[in-house]
Amino acid sequence: MAKEITSRAEDYSQWYNDIVLKADLADYSAVRGCMVIKPYGFALWEKMRDTLDKMFKDTGHVNAYFPLFIPKSFFSREASHVEGFAKECAVVTHYRLKNDPDGGGVVVDPEAKLEEELIVRPTSETIIWDTYKSWVQSYRDLPILLNQWANVVRWEMRTRLFLRTAEFLWQEGHTAHATKQEAIDETLQMLNVYADFVENYMGVSVARGVKTESERFAGAEDTYCIEALMQDGKALQAGTSHFLGQNFAKAFDVKFSDKDNNLDYVWATSWGVSTRLVGALVMAHSDDDGLVLPPKIAPLQVVIVPIYKGDDQLTAISEKARVIVKQLKELSVSVKYDDADNARPGWKFAEYEMKGVPVRIAIGARDLANNVVEVARRDTKEKKSVDINGIASYIKNLLKEIQTNIYNRSKSYRETHATEANTWEEFINILDAKGGFVSAHWDGTAATEEKIKDLSKATIRCIPLNNPQENGKCILTGNPSNQRVLFARAY
Amino acid sequence: MAKEITSRAEDYSQWYNDIVLKADLADYSAVRGCMVIKPYGFALWEKMRDTLDKMFKDTGHVNAYFPLFIPKSFFSREASHVEGFAKECAVVTHYRLKNDPDGGGVVVDPEAKLEEELIVRPTSETIIWDTYKSWVQSYRDLPILLNQWANVVRWEMRTRLFLRTAEFLWQEGHTAHATKQEAIDETLQMLNVYADFVENYMGVSVARGVKTESERFAGAEDTYCIEALMQDGKALQAGTSHFLGQNFAKAFDVKFSDKDNNLDYVWATSWGVSTRLVGALVMAHSDDDGLVLPPKIAPLQVVIVPIYKGDDQLTAISEKARVIVKQLKELSVSVKYDDADNARPGWKFAEYEMKGVPVRIAIGARDLANNVVEVARRDTKEKKSVDINGIASYIKNLLKEIQTNIYNRSKSYRETHATEANTWEEFINILDAKGGFVSAHWDGTAATEEKIKDLSKATIRCIPLNNPQENGKCILTGNPSNQRVLFARAY
Repeated sequence: MAKEITSRAEDYSQWYNDIVLKADLADYSAVRGCMVIKPYGFALWEKMRDTLDKMFKDTGHVNAYFPLFIPKSFFSREASHVEGFAKECAVVTHYRLKNDPDGGGVVVDPEAKLEEELIVRPTSETIIWDTYKSWVQSYRDLPILLNQWANVVRWEMRTRLFLRTAEFLWQEGHTAHATKQEAIDETLQMLNVYADFVENYMGVSVARGVKTESERFAGAEDTYCIEALMQDGKALQAGTSHFLGQNFAKAFDVKFSDKDNNLDYVWATSWGVSTRLVGALVMAHSDDDGLVLPPKIAPLQVVIVPIYKGDDQLTAISEKARVIVKQLKELSVSVKYDDADNARPGWKFAEYEMKGVPVRIAIGARDLANNVVEVARRDTKEKKSVDINGIASYIKNLLKEIQTNIYNRSKSYRETHATEANTWEEFINILDAKGGFVSAHWDGTAATEEKIKDLSKATIRCIPLNNPQENGKCILTGNPSNQRVLFARAY
Repeated sequence: MAKEITSRAEDYSQWYNDIVLKADLADYSAVRGCMVIKPYGFALWEKMRDTLDKMFKDTGHVNAYFPLFIPKSFFSREASHVEGFAKECAVVTHYRLKNDPDGGGVVVDPEAKLEEELIVRPTSETIIWDTYKSWVQSYRDLPILLNQWANVVRWEMRTRLFLRTAEFLWQEGHTAHATKQEAIDETLQMLNVYADFVENYMGVSVARGVKTESERFAGAEDTYCIEALMQDGKALQAGTSHFLGQNFAKAFDVKFSDKDNNLDYVWATSWGVSTRLVGALVMAHSDDDGLVLPPKIAPLQVVIVPIYKGDDQLTAISEKARVIVKQLKELSVSVKYDDADNARPGWKFAEYEMKGVPVRIAIGARDLANNVVEVARRDTKEKKSVDINGIASYIKNLLKEIQTNIYNRSKSYRETHATEANTWEEFINILDAKGGFVSAHWDGTAATEEKIKDLSKATIRCIPLNNPQENGKCILTGNPSNQRVLFARAY
């Protein structure tokens, strides 16, 4: 092996960090809690971003850009919003440095103090709704269907590459509507766009649901979410879509006149996914040899490695390899022929396994004589000798099969890791021994939810959409309940 | 006219602001000096960004992402760099807000003061070279050819939409090389990429050159630039490419061992263009009716407007319009059929003129009877009746012609506004009466350059590449000079 990584069994958390660093996805930076996204990690994010961007545009949204800074007073306008974000805000207080007159190097110029401090956006509802105020007068100005790709900052105390960083990249959709129903429909539409993306592109199966009151976004009436399971049985929130009611419209006084000239506050949604999804992708599929990437998101889908002795063999192999490259490109498959002579095939194999390239084709002199190549798939590690005639369409189909297989594995894992618990003892046993989602009755109070979290470290991930109603007793208090909810320990 | 804008003759500066606001490119925000980029303006930026991104990738570059924040001490490492940026830095000093115990609302928590202040990046050389230190050991790790699309903040006192804002969007390339020559070649390659983009996509003719020492980027050995002329005769720096020598490698101790195991500092370049280009695009081509956009950058290339009385006429026109839409899309032309019934054709014409849509097709009932449509081009405002048979390829060609015409106008303007001056009187007269570039001798000293700026408000925009050498006398001091340089008043 070119690079060693900790195994999942030994230390799941260290395994994750090893993969992120050794697959060249990201690196630590000199700034506490902020990471450097390296080119391979960024290429992965670009694939995800471009796919999502197209899905947003196909559902009628357009992109825009709002300021990085938010005046401090804006936060206070929506009470629960400031409550939710105040404790993790980076605050700009000055706008100039100067040379220390006492020779202490460069210092902040005390004379350049801002009259009002600026917050580096942790999310943009406030600055955007302040802007919407001047854009909306009549029902003709609605709906507004905007999205923004941006960096945001939340001063987290414990950070992890991709999963929880002080600065992260994300998109945030912010829409404005004339009716409550239209806003709710939009909220659910975007939840479904997220689920479609995470399942059918990232290959990660998710549960769709709605958050309990205490897990809602600060300022929302309802927060819908998709929740995925990682291989260690912990849940990860993969995306949220918020129905904001008229809260921000009221906070920023955004009213419109309807067709009958009645004034009303505008209805709002917001929805977002972030670079956290890269972390989810790594954790959901990868193995002890490195990344496993679904072909639809992989920056590189196929690599071809020549195995040769001497220039004559290399020339013959390269000639054939270039034909295969050309055929694959014609089928829109991304492919690289790696004939670099400064590394051995074994080293290359390990490197491309580490990077999760879905398909590897190896070509040796004997293969050439037999008109075959060796095709290895990353997801199952199966190797197969395949006829060169028709190789391109074989690979194209194989990529589809890998995409399906990766998703099916994730789906099957999620299905086998959703367990009903009917007593507290069962509940704890499942969490400790098996992990995954635990479907259990809860009495519906925030106090019980909090107590369960304290005792078990599990939180209510969501109340599933279209949840079957059944009578039961709360696993902690025994109080009556009319539905099960999904608990899990989570990232 | 649906919306009125100030004419260029009346007030060029107001004309510019009117267009930016009324063509829905951008809006002011509640944060001093920061703007909101509206969907239409952002769509323009997306076209520019995507085109440039492809050009960067075609020249071997990959994207990455580095932290928004830079520790204050990093700035001091490269002396001229901190000198250049210290006066316009947004500084983060705290990481938490709290409720004022005295009931004064939300305040900065004094206990959450950072040990070392963080600067919101005005440019990323320092944080990037601090990272490169851990990435580079040997010549095998070189070159590094990275680019980053990001937001940056420079606390400008006088701001203008797109042209000069406290926060702006840009790309910054940061490359690392084993040899000086390779770094210089990269610097020039990227200058040429910029010139290619600005001329052949944005349709704006530029002069290529190198900056004088006093106009160099803070920390560069040489700053190359492209300079465009706006319609008021003022110059605008449209892009810069810096040869940084070993300055940042020395400041951050980035060394590599070459093939012979000798240690040396790494050679660097950086290069950037920003949303300022949107301002340049507006100023270079637009007229008193609104934006004029080159087809290659226009978010929408063709609009079709029906002119009808009654539903029967509309149905017949719509049927034909949809055929034309389909034909145009097959030729990769972006097109919209605007059959909205809440605005009259005249209002629509004015609106699409304001937004600079390159080609408008109007279809009336009589046109239909004659199997023709009326085609209006935005750049020359010519209208023409064109046979519906073959309309799509006619439009496709027309778009090419418009692209060429817009560029040729810009080129011709630049050529006729590059004037030689041999005396101080001539110099001032040209600047006052005609504007544009003034080609004049300068004695090569920073003191004279500064004095000329004070007296004339003109700066040396660049020393043109491959500048002919000729003996002459400095227009201000009369001291000997061996070449002319390009002066202009500038944005």
